Amino acid sequence: MSESALLGFLQWIDLIGVVFNAVLGAVIGRAARLDVVGLAVLAIMSGLGGGMIRDVLLQSGPPIAITDWRYITATLAGAAVVMVVRVEGRWWDRIYPPIDALALGTWAAAGSLKTLEAGFGVLPALMLGTITAVGGGFVRDIVLRRIPGVLGGNTLYATAALAASIVAVGFWHVDLTAIGSVVATVFGAALVLLAKWRRLSLPVG
Amino acid sequence: MSESALLGFLQWIDLIGVVFNAVLGAVIGRAARLDVVGLAVLAIMSGLGGGMIRDVLLQSGPPIAITDWRYITATLAGAAVVMVVRVEGRWWDRIYPPIDALALGTWAAAGSLKTLEAGFGVLPALMLGTITAVGGGFVRDIVLRRIPGVLGGNTLYATAALAASIVAVGFWHVDLTAIGSVVATVFGAALVLLAKWRRLSLPVG
Amino acid sequence: MSESALLGFLQWIDLIGVVFNAVLGAVIGRAARLDVVGLAVLAIMSGLGGGMIRDVLLQSGPPIAITDWRYITATLAGAAVVMVVRVEGRWWDRIYPPIDALALGTWAAAGSLKTLEAGFGVLPALMLGTITAVGGGFVRDIVLRRIPGVLGGNTLYATAALAASIVAVGFWHVDLTAIGSVVATVFGAALVLLAKWRRLSLPVG
Repeated sequence: MSESALLGFLQWIDLIGVVFNAVLGAVIGRAARLDVVGLAVLAIMSGLGGGMIRDVLLQSGPPIAITDWRYITATLAGAAVVMVVRVEGRWWDRIYPPIDALALGTWAAAGSLKTLEAGFGVLPALMLGTITAVGGGFVRDIVLRRIPGVLGGNTLYATAALAASIVAVGFWHVDLTAIGSVVATVFGAALVLLAKWRRLSLPVG
Repeated sequence: MSESALLGFLQWIDLIGVVFNAVLGAVIGRAARLDVVGLAVLAIMSGLGGGMIRDVLLQSGPPIAITDWRYITATLAGAAVVMVVRVEGRWWDRIYPPIDALALGTWAAAGSLKTLEAGFGVLPALMLGTITAVGGGFVRDIVLRRIPGVLGGNTLYATAALAASIVAVGFWHVDLTAIGSVVATVFGAALVLLAKWRRLSLPVG
Repeated sequence: MSESALLGFLQWIDLIGVVFNAVLGAVIGRAARLDVVGLAVLAIMSGLGGGMIRDVLLQSGPPIAITDWRYITATLAGAAVVMVVRVEGRWWDRIYPPIDALALGTWAAAGSLKTLEAGFGVLPALMLGTITAVGGGFVRDIVLRRIPGVLGGNTLYATAALAASIVAVGFWHVDLTAIGSVVATVFGAALVLLAKWRRLSLPVG
């Protein structure tokens, strides 16, 4: 696969991740008995929050979430699905985890690479890669008055996002950006799934 | 009325909306037994939060809330009023709802038009129009550890803001910006008041 | 001491303040039984949150927290200390308050001066000076589902930050920026310590 085909492929995973996280946000919103507008707001926060925080901190132009119409559309589509279909049961429990994990990996890769391309160093790249991947869920949890899961949950979301960012940054430094994005995505996703499967968690600090 | 007179008129409603929302924020802060600085902070968040979020996302210059001295002054004046006068009782219950509703309408119109003028499309304009109108109350609720009212309250704030944004964007597309702002403001305000009066609410998602 | 030596001196206090506030954030995180990633996140928020909010609102370039590697490094060092050393007991109770107070003063001075240098007026300078000084703790409290202490605590953090900002802005206007920074820092710190010592608090609004 050529480099541009690879990057195009990753952008599709990115958008699919947006849809799935929007669906997750709306599902959580329904469980909290919010109305349809509340569902849409939670979907937007879950799907676009992390990238928005990253772009606002980078200060290199408006968030892609508002410049590329596909992003808002993707989240609203996700919210609409939840309002129409009963998103739950066995098929959802099977489909959701791998896509969620892949999205986390892509978001970490996309976030750290965007930071490097904007001219920043390794530390900001790792920080913003992680924020891109977990920021949406973080904001969603705060809005619903939960202590954000990434601060002390039983899965390793933030750790996996950081690990994926490290991989992406490493490959970028040896000029293998596209292949590195794929490796980072798969590596981050694998960590998330492994942590869920084995119920891994970090020691309390 | 000429177009510029109309726009000037709307800016005054905008500022009056800032004052009234600042007063509301401070009243809520007093009910939560915050001290005078807490009142001022809540007043600033309620009055200026939505516009600040919009301007930070647009990335087309610093928020008007910090470039135009009248905005901070207006919120501090609102907070000062609450510290001095007992803002409650029948006169407040009569004055507050219509001004609050008008402010929501103006903010939605102002937010969506500013987004269009900055060169963005219809979807971001509707999103940022709505955020401008309800963002301040959203942030205030989070700070006070409430689930934001717009996510599932018994009135249609977010829906009215979205409707007002749609009207403003529609008129803008047929080159009737100023008149559209007025129609959008009145339409949004009417929806808010109607929803309050008839206790309308959206279905749970 | 020359002016540049003074400013260099203040930047070191600024960084020391970042470390100490990062330590405080991590200590609070440990008390809330967060895991190591949660500790690091709270450390970053406490140490860098205020400056990030300021820089995002100023819109004059990316936050110094991500452009200057020393800032992230300082927060992570602070978090690491908490994971390794038992930060508590008498020595911590003695060291922490004065450094915390000095950091608040420096942050207020740095924030208000940066705002003035970016071309804004006195009101935004006072607002952003205060936000720089108390913003990190504000965000940390929200994340941990506490009503932010500055809204109604028993010490005068926000008031001291505002006072320090006023001093810094005043000296800047008579062209004594560096000496003003020192005076503002010491004045703000003295107010914080005095308020803690005498248990001063503002009247409920």
